[in-house]
Parts: sequence; structure tokens; C-alpha cells
Amino acid sequence: VTTARRAEVIGLGLIGSSLALALSRAGWHVSGSDIDDTREKRALELGVVSELGEDPDAELLVVATPVAQIAEIASRRLASRDDLVVTDVGSVKGPVVASVDHPRFVGGHPMAGSEQEGPDGADPDLFIGASWVLTPAASTDERAFATVREVVAAAGAELVVLSPRDHDALVAVVSHVPHLTAANLMAVAADASTEHAALLRLAAGGFRDMTRIAAGDPGIWPDIFKDNAPAVLEVLDALRARLDEARRIIVEEDREALVDLLEYAKRARRNLPPKAVRPEDLVECRVPVLDRPGVLAEVTAILSRASVNVWDLEIAHSAEGERGVLVLALRADSEDAARAGLQAAGYRPSFRPLS
Amino acid sequence: VTTARRAEVIGLGLIGSSLALALSRAGWHVSGSDIDDTREKRALELGVVSELGEDPDAELLVVATPVAQIAEIASRRLASRDDLVVTDVGSVKGPVVASVDHPRFVGGHPMAGSEQEGPDGADPDLFIGASWVLTPAASTDERAFATVREVVAAAGAELVVLSPRDHDALVAVVSHVPHLTAANLMAVAADASTEHAALLRLAAGGFRDMTRIAAGDPGIWPDIFKDNAPAVLEVLDALRARLDEARRIIVEEDREALVDLLEYAKRARRNLPPKAVRPEDLVECRVPVLDRPGVLAEVTAILSRASVNVWDLEIAHSAEGERGVLVLALRADSEDAARAGLQAAGYRPSFRPLS
Repeated sequence: VTTARRAEVIGLGLIGSSLALALSRAGWHVSGSDIDDTREKRALELGVVSELGEDPDAELLVVATPVAQIAEIASRRLASRDDLVVTDVGSVKGPVVASVDHPRFVGGHPMAGSEQEGPDGADPDLFIGASWVLTPAASTDERAFATVREVVAAAGAELVVLSPRDHDALVAVVSHVPHLTAANLMAVAADASTEHAALLRLAAGGFRDMTRIAAGDPGIWPDIFKDNAPAVLEVLDALRARLDEARRIIVEEDREALVDLLEYAKRARRNLPPKAVRPEDLVECRVPVLDRPGVLAEVTAILSRASVNVWDLEIAHSAEGERGVLVLALRADSEDAARAGLQAAGYRPSFRPLS
Repeated sequence: VTTARRAEVIGLGLIGSSLALALSRAGWHVSGSDIDDTREKRALELGVVSELGEDPDAELLVVATPVAQIAEIASRRLASRDDLVVTDVGSVKGPVVASVDHPRFVGGHPMAGSEQEGPDGADPDLFIGASWVLTPAASTDERAFATVREVVAAAGAELVVLSPRDHDALVAVVSHVPHLTAANLMAVAADASTEHAALLRLAAGGFRDMTRIAAGDPGIWPDIFKDNAPAVLEVLDALRARLDEARRIIVEEDREALVDLLEYAKRARRNLPPKAVRPEDLVECRVPVLDRPGVLAEVTAILSRASVNVWDLEIAHSAEGERGVLVLALRADSEDAARAGLQAAGYRPSFRPLS
């Protein structure tokens, strides 16, 4: 008989619990623990873990605690066994990897999450299609890396290998500073709305898009800004320098520099790759729509009937008002079918290559 | 027999053409003109206007040209007749209203738009449910204001009356500075991505939301930043000051100030009113979903079958990954029907009052 591979998860929050479920589904035996007794009990009840407590026979330990606890737990458990592989799921990698500094430790960060919490929010599909960063070092043991890589694959995620420093620099750009900016933009509007209640009535789709992530709970953010301070400050300073330049452009009416900036941003935004597929296989389909409920259902139903798979979809709200454009990524070989179906229903789609 | 009321539209871009169609549908006779002959011809072909050229019998002139031309055209036509009412649709109001300064001129700004252009993109429904700002002055003729107000109502828009200065201050907050910020945030990421191609693979929902409006064409923006420079600079400086403070918070690890900021932004964002309905009539329904095409169609179909009207809908992407929450605004009296329908389909909706 084959014996199940054994993993242990410390920290049964959303990520830890979801990974436990994903590993169980892939045939692993998973035990777990949490500092919170209620959470442990709930995880056992829901079958998120098969057992509570430390597993002396586990080949893998996943540390899914808040970032501040990772290094201490990982180091202690690495020292207590000579064959245990350890990984973590923290949002910042540099300080953790430098502090643990062990051949059997592989730093990790699944770029996945939801507004749900704990074992009750756990979902074995949480990581499917998500990017999962691993940050091996020169000293990393090959077998340890292979084990953690298997976990990423078992969870259905796409592996991205980066140095801890690069990881921290990149998430500062695509996640940490945007979050800070959204909060501050919303705060500026909130300040202004205390004088003018009408302000919020004028907030249309573009403003809503830009401030949406500011609606989230503060949660993990204070730790992130503390642990990733150097990278965040570098990106924040780059943004502040660009806003200083924007100020100059406006004061001096430097039309050419303004158009250059807007064109540069436009090209970069339009070239953002859709997730998990190759851009060269896709076309972008733009469908002008009334920005109302029902229109998404209608367009997706039309495409479904025409056997067209939708690989990515977003609504480009107009800066003001109720109009929008559905931007879809479709396989290039489904363009004709999509065009025919949409035109028959009265829409005016336009297509262009994505790559 | 009743004689049709007569309006003239100068400038047959998207807004001018759409308004011409909306007025025609409301029974008005509409003539129009444009500096571009091809556009004029196309507007006539499509029935956007009934006639080309100046209408000496029009009671209303709508100046729908770029902002730079509005004051000259409006002043000339006001001087040529003693009973003509004139309005405009420019995105900035202070300079225009101050320059025209006439009892029969009422400044206006419909907060509507789309990515479409000219008579071909025209749509009489463009303004339905949109906010339409009018900026009457103390000297404004009552009859002139009543006429323009009728136009707003005929177009199906919701009237918001503001002073030109307040209008310009508010659109700087909810539209102009957010646009500038999105462009600069995208530019910072584009700069970073030249060193690290992996960066763009890590850009998940939150970043996409924040930079979406940066994908638009530069178009009208240089004029807007020129004409609304004072208000834009004031808001931009408020944002820059807040980002300076954010820098201090991070450098000094001022956890309390950070949580205060994030809580303030969260409350303000969650209290953004849905458009065109009274918050006290609505509940917010949050449905955790996998952020994939098809899920919107599925949820809206369930609600439709349960006879639940959706008044507002947005996807709250998680900061990272493929999970999201559908946030719907529903009438309070449809909460039970929505809960039953969604739970029967395996969703876990939660509800809370919106006001």
C-alpha cells in the first residue's frame, strides 16, 4: 500500500485552511494548528485538517501565520528535525528569508486571497490560476525546492520564481503602493465631501474603480507596510516624484509632456497581460454597453451560445456617467463566432490583437 | 396644431449628437452643425439632426464644442438674438460661465460619456440616470434656467445644481485627479516592468481596477487640466500632502495613524451612494465568488428569476488573486427573496443596510 504524504500547516486562516484543503484533495494527510482554539476546533469539524497538533512524520511544514511569527516558528522547527522542508505564505519575503536562512526553507507567497476569513472561508480552489511566488536562495536544497514546487502545482497555481528582494519590490508596485494610494484618494474625497454632500453623487465608475480596494479591512496592512518599508518607500517616492512632475506639467501647461504621460500609461495599461494565458493566443474584444446590471449576463450568454470562451473580462467604465465598454480577452480563433453572435444581438464589437 | 419646440446643437460629437437624439425623441425639432463637414453629413444621414445650419427660430442653443470654443460661440449667439437661451456641456464650468456672463446662459455638464465618438456613437439613452450639473448664477434668467432644466429632464438625467466653482472643485476630486493618479501609477509600474517582466504577471484585480481609466485616449484631458488647473492643483496638493504623511507613517512605523487612515477610507468607500436611488431604500448584498467570467451572469440570472431588481453592482476584487465579492445594491424589501435564491444555488450572501 502507498502511504499518504504528510504535511502540517501552522496558522489556519484563509490561506492556511485553503491550502490544507487543496493538499488533502491531492491525497496528502494534513494536520494543523492555530493559536486560536476556536479556529482549531472549527478546522477539525469542517475537515479542513485531519488532525490537530504537530506531526513528527510530516515531510513538509507550511507556516501560514502572520509575517511577524514566521521566522521564529520556521527556525525552531527546522532545528528540531533534519529532514523537514519548511515554506511560508507571507506577503513580504526579504526579512523572513534573511532571518531563517536555511537550506530546507523555501520562502513563498501565493498571490491569492478573498474577503472571507478562517476555516469557514476556506476553499481548495482558492489558488487555481493564481501566481505563486517562490524565493529560493543559492543555498536552497534542491529536494526542498522540489517539494514546495509540487505543493504549488497541487494547488493549481502558476509558479513565479523571484529573489526575495525582487518579490518585495514587485508587490510594492502592484499591490502595496496602489492600496495606499486608493486609501489616500478616498480620504481626499471624504474630506471634500464633508463640505459638499453632492460630491459623492458625482462619483461615477472611474472613481469607484480606483477606490474599490480601499473598502477592505485594515487587517494585514500595517504588518506589510512595516515589513516591506524599504521597497514601499522606493515606489511611493517614485509615485510622489511623478505627481510632482504632474504638478509642474499643469502649472506650466506643458501639453506635450501631459500627452506623453497619458499615452505611455495607456499603452502600458492596454498591454497588461490577461492572467494565465499567452497574449499571442488572444484577441481583445471591446463591446460598448450601457453600464447596467444585466448587460454582462447578456453578453456572456451570447458568447456562451456561440461557443466562445472568455479568458478575461473587465468593464472599462467611462470617467463619467453610465456608459462603459466590456473588454474581453478571447481566443483569436473564436473572433468570427464572437463577432457574428454579438452583431446579431445589436452590439458593435471591435477586435484587436492583444500581443 | 402644436408647433414643435426648436433647438440647435453646435458640435456633433458624442454628447452633442446624443443630446440631439434625446431631444428629437422628446418631440423637439433639432438642427445642428459641426466644424467637420463629414461629421455634419453623417449626422444628417443618421437622423441625429433634422437640418444642418443655424436655426433663427430655435428657443435653445446647446454649445457642445470643445471647452476652448464655448465662450466665444455662446457670447456671439446671445448677442445676436434677444430671446435665445444658451447652455453648454463642457467638463469645466468656472472659466466659461465667467467669460459668457449673461442672464440667458446656463452652464451645464452632463456626467456621461462613452468610448464611442461622434454621430455614429450617438445614443439617446446616454444620459438616463446620469447626474447633470447646471451652474446658474444670481443673474440667471428664470425662464432660461427652466428651459435648460426641461432639457435635462427630457434626457432622463438627474439634476444637480452647483456653483461653477463648486462644480470645478468636485469634478477635480472625483474625476480629474483620479485620472491623473491612475496614469501616474500605471507609469510607475511600466517603469518597473522594463526591469522585471514578471511584474505584470503579478498584477491582480486590485491593480487592474486602479489603473483601468488610464487605458483611455488622452483626448479631452489636456484641455481639462488647463481649464480646471486651480481646482486640480488644490486637490492634487491635498493628495500629495496625504502621501507625504503616508511616507512619514511608514518611516516612523506609526501603526495607529495607518489604521486610522485605512479605517477612514474604508468607511467612506463603503458609504459611497449607489447612483440614482436613495440609499435608505436599499440593502447591500455581498456574495463571495470565484472571480471568473460566467459568475456574474449566474448570479444576475438567479436574482432575475427571484424577481429581484439589481440597482447597483460591482465586483470587489481581492488585492491579490482570483477571488472576489460581488457587491450588489438591492431594494430592502427584496432581501428575503434574494437570500433564498442565492442560498439555494450554493452562494453565501450577507446583507447590511446601505444608509
